[in-house]
Amino acid sequence: MTKTAVFGTGSWGTTFAMILAEAGNETVLWGRRPELVSAINSTGENPDYLPGITLPGSLRATDSAAEALDGADFVVLAVPSQTLRGNLDTWREHIPDGAVLVSLMKGIELGTTKRMSEVIREVAGVPEERVAVISGPNLAKEIAQRQPAATVVACTDEAVAKRLQDVCHLPPWFRPYTNLDVVGVELGGAVKNVIALAVGVAVGMGMGDNVAAMMITRGLAEISRLGAALGADPHTFSGLAGMGDLVATCTSPLSRNRTFGENLGRGMTLEEVIAATRQTAEGVKSCESVLELARKHDVEMPITEVVVGVVHDGMSPREAGMLLMSRSPKPERYGV
Amino acid sequence: MTKTAVFGTGSWGTTFAMILAEAGNETVLWGRRPELVSAINSTGENPDYLPGITLPGSLRATDSAAEALDGADFVVLAVPSQTLRGNLDTWREHIPDGAVLVSLMKGIELGTTKRMSEVIREVAGVPEERVAVISGPNLAKEIAQRQPAATVVACTDEAVAKRLQDVCHLPPWFRPYTNLDVVGVELGGAVKNVIALAVGVAVGMGMGDNVAAMMITRGLAEISRLGAALGADPHTFSGLAGMGDLVATCTSPLSRNRTFGENLGRGMTLEEVIAATRQTAEGVKSCESVLELARKHDVEMPITEVVVGVVHDGMSPREAGMLLMSRSPKPERYGV
Repeated sequence: MTKTAVFGTGSWGTTFAMILAEAGNETVLWGRRPELVSAINSTGENPDYLPGITLPGSLRATDSAAEALDGADFVVLAVPSQTLRGNLDTWREHIPDGAVLVSLMKGIELGTTKRMSEVIREVAGVPEERVAVISGPNLAKEIAQRQPAATVVACTDEAVAKRLQDVCHLPPWFRPYTNLDVVGVELGGAVKNVIALAVGVAVGMGMGDNVAAMMITRGLAEISRLGAALGADPHTFSGLAGMGDLVATCTSPLSRNRTFGENLGRGMTLEEVIAATRQTAEGVKSCESVLELARKHDVEMPITEVVVGVVHDGMSPREAGMLLMSRSPKPERYGV
Repeated sequence: MTKTAVFGTGSWGTTFAMILAEAGNETVLWGRRPELVSAINSTGENPDYLPGITLPGSLRATDSAAEALDGADFVVLAVPSQTLRGNLDTWREHIPDGAVLVSLMKGIELGTTKRMSEVIREVAGVPEERVAVISGPNLAKEIAQRQPAATVVACTDEAVAKRLQDVCHLPPWFRPYTNLDVVGVELGGAVKNVIALAVGVAVGMGMGDNVAAMMITRGLAEISRLGAALGADPHTFSGLAGMGDLVATCTSPLSRNRTFGENLGRGMTLEEVIAATRQTAEGVKSCESVLELARKHDVEMPITEVVVGVVHDGMSPREAGMLLMSRSPKPERYGV
């Protein structure tokens, strides 16, 4: 029996652990807070992030990383992206030789501008064929409620990608597609949070579906330009981990990043939104590292720029909108 | 002063006539029904399709095609796509020499599987450099309410595209981009209605944003395959007339095609939905001609196939969903 360990009791970590357990793998869910771990084990629910959803009986939680990692074939990482480096550093001595490390995280590390798979390789000291990423239109709550979903499982080693695909395939609900383009799949997941913040701001200002569609389309154009500069396969961005995830995140009221942006667009200050928000909106932190990455590679990302302006530099949403709409006319496609 | 005539008093025809009039063109709006024409002229509103929106004072309506066409530089066609051939046949003798014919229509002709620009060229007997198409994420009601929007103006003759861009540019609200790929722009607009029907059916069955995003992504993949077979530029489908329009149409509650699909997904019969729906849902007719076109060119369009099944052949929405989810595993990209 394959043994899997999932690190992170947020809604996506918990949901993915459900999928793994139901697909027949021995699965342990690691959580930082002992009281949440106890609640999960005693009630069979995650009361903080998936209230009302019954977890599989075979899924157990622990706050001991050593226990979770003991004998694990796949180590799935689903912690907030800016905490990955510190967390993984304390866990690495317990990671079994040969285990595959799988990132569910969608962010770019502040300061280093590294993708999550790069941080994993560096901190855990593993080669790229032992690191995989999973990304797609996967709003956790909908999957937890048994709605069908598809995702992309990416690893530079095709055999590893296929093994992971087998491990998390749960027909007819959860359908993973393999892909070798780790860079593109990861960038799609990281930058979409920034675009979702921007769409949220527009929606909060009262804009409708034309504006949202325009920003999603132009947002994918800037993700694709960054991808081209970093060596991603351009076709990845037309797929589930690119356009698919972007559309789900930008259009769903369940998306934290979009909701965060909506509150900003309605006139709340950053501090007010943070105080009102329980979960991490990854884009708030990632927007700065994405912009830094873009500048390093001389890539124009106008939507990301105004998101950094609104979130971190006191730019008003109205000013941001005028800046975007007053850019000089451009062809639809450039820089890719 | 440029003279423009818009044929069709539906919400998009009326809104586009507003844009043309406000951009400073002499603009006449032709309508079939004398009572609606009178209402528009006497109240300055279109009570049937844009109630509550004040039309520009300079915009006038007529039910005389000859009057509307007299001296027109641009003839904008916004009638239901399956009525274009018959309508244009009665108007053509009045079309001035040298006028540019512009299609706002999104459909494929039943029987002939011709795009609207092909029907225009054939019936009006004009060369391709006198036919343009306009398509993008342009839900009429939002534009009529003064929200910003962008669109694509396509003509194989770049100079004509630029002239039309000038004529309908209304900053900062309406921003047209030029494109030379008439085939791609037109296909994006025609097939998105079919995909929107499918997304609507899923939403009506209770599915959420992951499923919608999955169908939008796989829908664009099948539009791109058809485009590749017909000689379109693949990049058009990543732009505003491809992905942009698809996203707006599939996610907006204002979209007729999505709403039509939702009613089917909730269990209404085709007859019940038609009885409950006031406006034309183009996809209901176009799905058959799109599928015929795909078969002629040996292109796989699984979503379009089940839409035809549900709309015309009595397939249940549940059966359609199972058919799609049980297809053999595929790479994300094939046939393009």
